Amino acid sequence: MKFAVVLSGCGVYDGSEIHEAVMTLLAIDINNCTYEIFAPNIMQYHVINHLTGEVMNEKRNALIESARIARGKIKALSEYKPENYDGLIFPGGFGAAKNLCSYAIDGADMKVDRVVEKAVKETHAAGKPIGALCIAPVLITKILGNVEVTIGNDNETAGVIEKLGGTHRTAGNTDVVIDYKNKVVTTPCYMLCTRISEIAESADKLVKAMVKIAGNNQK
Amino acid sequence: MKFAVVLSGCGVYDGSEIHEAVMTLLAIDINNCTYEIFAPNIMQYHVINHLTGEVMNEKRNALIESARIARGKIKALSEYKPENYDGLIFPGGFGAAKNLCSYAIDGADMKVDRVVEKAVKETHAAGKPIGALCIAPVLITKILGNVEVTIGNDNETAGVIEKLGGTHRTAGNTDVVIDYKNKVVTTPCYMLCTRISEIAESADKLVKAMVKIAGNNQK
Repeated sequence: MKFAVVLSGCGVYDGSEIHEAVMTLLAIDINNCTYEIFAPNIMQYHVINHLTGEVMNEKRNALIESARIARGKIKALSEYKPENYDGLIFPGGFGAAKNLCSYAIDGADMKVDRVVEKAVKETHAAGKPIGALCIAPVLITKILGNVEVTIGNDNETAGVIEKLGGTHRTAGNTDVVIDYKNKVVTTPCYMLCTRISEIAESADKLVKAMVKIAGNNQK
Repeated sequence: MKFAVVLSGCGVYDGSEIHEAVMTLLAIDINNCTYEIFAPNIMQYHVINHLTGEVMNEKRNALIESARIARGKIKALSEYKPENYDGLIFPGGFGAAKNLCSYAIDGADMKVDRVVEKAVKETHAAGKPIGALCIAPVLITKILGNVEVTIGNDNETAGVIEKLGGTHRTAGNTDVVIDYKNKVVTTPCYMLCTRISEIAESADKLVKAMVKIAGNNQK
């Protein structure tokens, strides 16, 4: 099986959370699947100095920065076609909430990048599983509406998910929540976890659940 | 046990190889040890667009960019003190050969960052293990001289190691070479490997070997 992984930059505060992204790739490989990596060809909302937490007076492109995690093997998300993959996965990090959509800025009134919206809607329409880690389930709920997801136990974010028409399920550190009807698999990762080994475990559980759903698709 | 991990930026072509860095952290955690992350507070040699491979007209700081992999929890390498750790680990990536030393530019005539040199020499003098992944063994050989290391099977790089006074041992993808006398542990990673799961396996073997050496130190 082959999965598409969508990144949003390179670094937790303005792009993809690096550990979550890398552990997603590892989990796919360990489960004897392959991956291709995508990111939207857009400018990041901003650039954060990860040492100080302050905004830097720089501009960076989400696709070019994501290429760092992908070791150069990455395509613009506009090239993504659901028929070539068995599922679509979104690691977390603020990039999912600042670049792929504007949740971190606009809350429930967020806007979603049109290429991201198209990729999620077409994957869902094709009956293929969608995985989302950390904060990314908010993005999926904004796009698909009535889905069952988790971001862990943060009441504010859970409230936004309910406001967007979704159903939030409280979950523990490495739990995955599976919406079998909509084929959406979510896990809290760094919304709750503190150890990198928990991220590896979370990503592995998420990929295993997606492989199972995708396997049923193939029957 | 606690290990210090030295990064050199964030991205294979101008900084730390991200998968190797993240898998090193995972291996340390999985083996029930803890880590602290360091990087020298220096400007990177250059900035590479990881999508095109071209040099970008930008300047980035190795410590600030490394903070992306460390999720902000990182210190300047000048603060490193060997007595507080059980070993020192250098993931690979061109940052190890462009920022920590100038091997990628000057070959065997390379210069080494003075803070990096001090950290390696003091760790070695304290009898604590030093680990190096991918291209980083060249840096260790330049600093320590007569050590036994591997970078896989690349003849040119192996030749430089011999020229620097080291002994090169040919190794397979996830092999580790252990110099018990000097307590130096090395593994080829992306000098040979093609799958991210091989990087996870290599890092785990390297950390296990270092834990064993550090354990003997404690007896």
